[in-house]
This record gives sequence, structure tokens and C-alpha cells, in this order.
Amino acid sequence: MNIKNYMVDIGQRARRASREIVKADTGKKNAALQAIADQIETNREQLISANRQDLSRAKKNNLDSAMLDRLEIKSSTIDGMIEGLHQVALLADPVGEISELNYRPSGIQVGRMRVPLGVIGIIYESRPNVTVEAASLCLKSGNATILRGGSEAIDSNQAIATCIKKGLQAAGLPTDAVQVVETTDREAVGELITMPEYVDVIVPRGGKGLIERISRDAKVTVIKHLDGICHVYIDDLADHDKAVNIAINSKTQRYGTCNTMETLLVHKNLAAKLLPVLAESFQSAGVELRGCDQSRAVISGINIATEEDWSTEYLAPILAIKVVNDMDEAITHINRYSSQHTDSIVTESYTRGRRFLAEVDSSSVMINASTRFADGFEYGLGAEIGISTDKIHARGPVGLEGLTSQKFIVLGDGHIRR
Amino acid sequence: MNIKNYMVDIGQRARRASREIVKADTGKKNAALQAIADQIETNREQLISANRQDLSRAKKNNLDSAMLDRLEIKSSTIDGMIEGLHQVALLADPVGEISELNYRPSGIQVGRMRVPLGVIGIIYESRPNVTVEAASLCLKSGNATILRGGSEAIDSNQAIATCIKKGLQAAGLPTDAVQVVETTDREAVGELITMPEYVDVIVPRGGKGLIERISRDAKVTVIKHLDGICHVYIDDLADHDKAVNIAINSKTQRYGTCNTMETLLVHKNLAAKLLPVLAESFQSAGVELRGCDQSRAVISGINIATEEDWSTEYLAPILAIKVVNDMDEAITHINRYSSQHTDSIVTESYTRGRRFLAEVDSSSVMINASTRFADGFEYGLGAEIGISTDKIHARGPVGLEGLTSQKFIVLGDGHIRR
Repeated sequence: MNIKNYMVDIGQRARRASREIVKADTGKKNAALQAIADQIETNREQLISANRQDLSRAKKNNLDSAMLDRLEIKSSTIDGMIEGLHQVALLADPVGEISELNYRPSGIQVGRMRVPLGVIGIIYESRPNVTVEAASLCLKSGNATILRGGSEAIDSNQAIATCIKKGLQAAGLPTDAVQVVETTDREAVGELITMPEYVDVIVPRGGKGLIERISRDAKVTVIKHLDGICHVYIDDLADHDKAVNIAINSKTQRYGTCNTMETLLVHKNLAAKLLPVLAESFQSAGVELRGCDQSRAVISGINIATEEDWSTEYLAPILAIKVVNDMDEAITHINRYSSQHTDSIVTESYTRGRRFLAEVDSSSVMINASTRFADGFEYGLGAEIGISTDKIHARGPVGLEGLTSQKFIVLGDGHIRR
Repeated sequence: MNIKNYMVDIGQRARRASREIVKADTGKKNAALQAIADQIETNREQLISANRQDLSRAKKNNLDSAMLDRLEIKSSTIDGMIEGLHQVALLADPVGEISELNYRPSGIQVGRMRVPLGVIGIIYESRPNVTVEAASLCLKSGNATILRGGSEAIDSNQAIATCIKKGLQAAGLPTDAVQVVETTDREAVGELITMPEYVDVIVPRGGKGLIERISRDAKVTVIKHLDGICHVYIDDLADHDKAVNIAINSKTQRYGTCNTMETLLVHKNLAAKLLPVLAESFQSAGVELRGCDQSRAVISGINIATEEDWSTEYLAPILAIKVVNDMDEAITHINRYSSQHTDSIVTESYTRGRRFLAEVDSSSVMINASTRFADGFEYGLGAEIGISTDKIHARGPVGLEGLTSQKFIVLGDGHIRR
């Protein structure tokens, strides 16, 4: 098979399908989501048996247990897929929303209409339920989708693709609206990210290495999510209980997520009082602490945090701690080392909270709340296709709205320009 | 001079300045715009004499008269710069606007705050007044700017840069907030568009060749404006007077602009009646017509429009005409050949107008209005840094809002995630 021709064919089909799906009304798109859910329900056995082939191949290839865990489709995974499809069907349809429609002095009315982006390419690893999640969000937002999963999940993804195709067909939508790439050849990814004539946006979901590689080579806009190096800054005007609760929760509620705190900044006036309390909690939860000299003066027996620690996303029970002289130093540290994902201040000061919101250049900036809230569901987006650490188009959790943009509409009555 | 080091230094200065200017309040930014206007007023003679050096060098280099025209700074050009600065000062400040702040079931409040993009690189040709226009829009929207004008305008641009620096200084803002690249070495552009660590967006303003080159090589997001192949479709349910007025105005009000109609589509039922009337008007205005076979059957003596004509941006008194069977054929033609800039339907039909708005995938879609309205001023944006033919981030005329994005803000009271 010639991979280039194969991908161009997929691209052309997707572009044609995107012209159809943009016209599909909300009811039809919801019917398709329901029909896909029905197909998945009906084909539980087929999905699990396809998944077993992936799993046995993965075991032969000595994939690690975390990878196997992400790859496995259990009965509860299928329940989750079906539930997810129902939830996306319940979300408001962003397409066609007209806003800011106002008369201009010339007499024309000018407004904005929310429209799909067109064709979205999703590149992801291992977890086959991403196939359903991503397809449902792109479908609801009126986009055609090209999905390229990991080679380790190829059988599962193809089985899911069959359910999606049947669901689209049942609802009278073009089956090319969701295409799953059938080859595991890596060249297919190279083609997918360099076809701006057929693909409008790429959303990579996976490790940092994958995302960096794609961003480097892409000729299509990439909505990318790199590191999550998140900070909590405990100000000297913080409520002590809130400070302790937020710091503990931001680190220990889950270790492997991108919105987990990786560095704790503490005002020097509170270091002696709060750090020993915090250290006890962290250490009893099994968190390894690394600190600056001032932190180490009040927490005994911890290692020094090096320059590298300030810019590391541990994704593990490790926390770097730094004592700062004031909020300005905290903001400077954050704007230098943060990955612009999520940063939170704990303070009772109106003035400092207001400044922190304005001056910290991250996709989520918080006052008196755990960084763990940075999430599409918690924010009320209904679902998320990913979290963007870019500054253009969409920042932070990307939901249906992030898969659309706005065009201008002009309503006249024979108006001409003088 | 080592160009790479020089550009990295500019990039680092811009990044630092962007951290300062994001904090500047509206009054301070407006004071800077006023101070720049005062500097330009005071230095009229210096600007004109610097421009004379550019002009005499351009004449020696045999630049064509259109180029010389764009390069020249007249007294009225300076009036325009000053007026433009005052207008930008009057525009609402987009930075810091908080919207959609709502309580979530967890108790946190989640909203969005409009923030500058950071550092914007502008690459442009000949017209030195772009230096002032672009700098003022980026400044008002809280961004730091790196301006790279054409080598033919280097003396004019440096003289303007001096006025801008003095104005920034007078208002107490960092002078690095607006930097004009002092070298004419083309390598500087190559560096500017490949420094994502210092530059967040590139806005190229110039010919298609320049924009394509930059888009191809950039490692930074480019807000690009490629062709303006705009259509007017006259539906069989059109009011005839409106149809004629809009078609004539869309083509003849100005020929060289991107929102000028390049192809006219006419429903077959109206071809015999309207095309001869239109042809007479167009031809008496000096517009050369090229048509499909059906158009040529009712307009005598015009050349045939080839496949190439449908995808050509003439920017000249030439118009391609095609007779279509119905609106579906018109939409298909537009979605195939349009540059997704601006397309207009003339119809009295509610249903067709509604469908045209939804199905035409262009940055501006109009009903019963001249394509010439597609413009930041006409749309009420106050000013525009360019017109985007991209689908991501901003479509159509890009004003202050397009130079910003939104981050999430979360307000809690010690909230942690359960």
C-alpha cells in the first residue's frame, strides 16, 4: 500500500464528509451518538475479543503493566464509552450560535456565527476509549475526524470504528465523518500532519515526546498540551487552614495528572510555621520533598531542590518546595518555570489575588482553590478533548467550543459601500 | 553582526517587556499612544526627511511607481498616523475582561479572562505607516511587538521607531515593548519566525509570496491572510436592483482590495435578463469580463473563463462570470474555489439566505450586502491588524480582540477536589 495515496484518500473523504456534517442538525448528530452507543452495547463481545488480540500481542511484546492497563477494555470501560456518548448528546450544540449581531452605522448588521473547524486529526496512544471520546466530541461540534491510534490498539480501534460507522449510517450521516486509520505504518502520521489542504487541526494525545515530535513536523495547527508544571503559592496573608488543605489536595489527590502541583512556593513569614505541618502531611502520604535552603532549614532531612527540579513535571509523589520573599518573587518564579498550565495563590488579600489573576500567564489561574480543579468537567465544559498549553485559539481545557471557531456574518438589504 | 544573537536579544527583551506591559492599565497605555502621536507631530520634518532617503534609494533601485507610492510619507500620511493613534486610544481595552464567571457544583467560580498573547512579530513590506498602526494595536492589547519592515523603508521605519520609543518612555512604559528590527538582512526574518520561546504569533502583511514563505518556514503560529477570491451569487429569488447594485459595488468600488469580488455567480433563470445590464455597467467602468459558455451566450464578445480564472485573485478590473443551475451549485463552486475570505448571496428567500450563511465556509458570509464591507472598520472593530483566512483562533478582520486570548480563572474559598 502506498501510504501517501492512502492518507490523501482519507483526507479527501474527510473533507467531503465535513461539508455534509456541517449541515447536520443537532437532532441528527444526537441520533448518531445514540446509534453509536447502541452499536457498542450490541457488540460488547466483539470489542472485548478484539481487545484480547491487542492484549496478547502487547504481552508478547513485553509492554509494561501501566501500558497494558491503559490498553485493556473491560466491561466497565464499555459502560464508560456508552455513558460518555450519552453525555455528549446532552451537551448544547455549539454550531450555528450567532452572537454580537449589531447594526453598524452603514446600516448592515454584523455578527459572529460559531462554525466547525472542518477536519480534525487526532493522534493518540494506547487507550482505545479515546477513539469514542474524540469521535463523539468532533461529531457533536460538526467536524469530520481522522483518528490515528497506537499500533498496540489497532484491533480494538478497528472494532470500535465499525460500531461508529454503523451508528453514523443508521443516523443518515456520511460514514467518512469518522475515519480510523487502518495502517500502523508510522509514515501515516507524517502524512496526516502535513496535509493542510485536508486537515484543519491536529490534536495529539499522549506523552510529551509524541507531542513535541508532532509539533515540530506539523504543517497543520496543533492544539498541544505539553507539561503540567503547576504551582501553589501560599501568601503570608493566607488563611492557614485553607493553605494546608489546598497544598495537600493539589499534590496528593492524584499524582499522575497534569494539574497536580509540582512546586510549592511559601512566603518566608509562614515558612517556619506552615512548612513543618505540611511536611508531616506530605511525608505521611509518602511524598518525597525537595527544598531550597530556606525550606531545608525548617524541614529536616530533605534533599536540596536543584535548578532541574523547578522545571520538572514529576507526575509522581515528589514535591519541590521554595520559600519566597514576597508575591512578586512567586510570580516571577511561576512565569519563568511554570508550563503555563495551572497556578494557584492562597491569600485573603483582595489586592494580591487581583494582581495574581492578572499577572500569572497560565491557562488556569486560581485563588484559594486546588490546582486539581483544572479540568473540562469541573469547569462545566461537559467533556474535554485535551488541555491546551498554547496561547492561540484555546487555552486550558478544550471542550466543544474549542473545536469550533467564529466566522462573521453580514445581513444587509441591498447595502453597498460608499 | 551575528544575526542570530541579535534576534535572540530582541526576543528576550520583548519577552521581558511583555511581562511589564501586561500590567499596564488602560490609562497608561492610552497615555503612551498620545505621547507617540505627540512625538510624530513634533518630528514631522525628521520623518519626511528620513523618508526622502528611502525614496531616493528606491528610485535608484528602479522600484515601480506603485511601490514608490506606498513608500512615500506625505504630510497627509503623518496626519493619518496621528489620527490612527487617537482612534486606537479611544477603543475599549480588551485586556482583563472577565466573562462567563459562574458557580460550579463544587462551589468554585469559573470564568474567563481576556489576556494579551504576549509577543507579536509583524513582518511587512514598503508602507511605513504600518509601523505605527501595528505598534498601536499591539500596545493597546497589552502585547510586546517586534516589527520587521521592508529594507526599502528602513530609514522611515527607524525614524518612526524613535518616536515610538520616546512616547513609551514618556508614559513610563518599557521601550522594548515596541522594537523595530534595525538590520535589513533577510536572515533576521528567518530567526524571528523560528523563536517560539520569545515570539507567540507572527502577523505577515504583504504579498502572497511573502505570506506563503513565512507560513512554510515558521515555527510560531502565523495569522495569515492569503488570497481574497470573493464571490457574489445572484439567486433567482433576488431583488434585481439590489443584485445589480451589489454586484457593481463589490467589483468596482475598488479593484486592488482583498474584499473585491473576483467571480460573479448568476442563477440561470436571471442570466438573460440581468447579465446584459450588468455587462454594460461593468464594461463602461472598464472591467474586462470573462465568462462560462452560458454567460457568453447572453453577453457578446467576451472571452471564455478558464479553470484558472475561477481560482484567480485578479486585484484588477477583470471579472469572471458563471451561470449556475441553483444555489447548491453556487455553494459548491464557492466552497471549492473561494479563498474562504468573503462571499455574498443576493436573495429575498429566507430559507436560501439561512442556508447560505450556514453552508458557505468563509470568514465573512453575507446576505444582500457588498463584499466590500468585509473590513475591520466597517465591522466596528475600530481597526484591524489584518484579515485572517485561517480557521483557527481568528477568522476575518482581526482587531484588538484577535491579539488576545482567554485564560480560565477560578475563584475559591479553600476549595479542594474530592
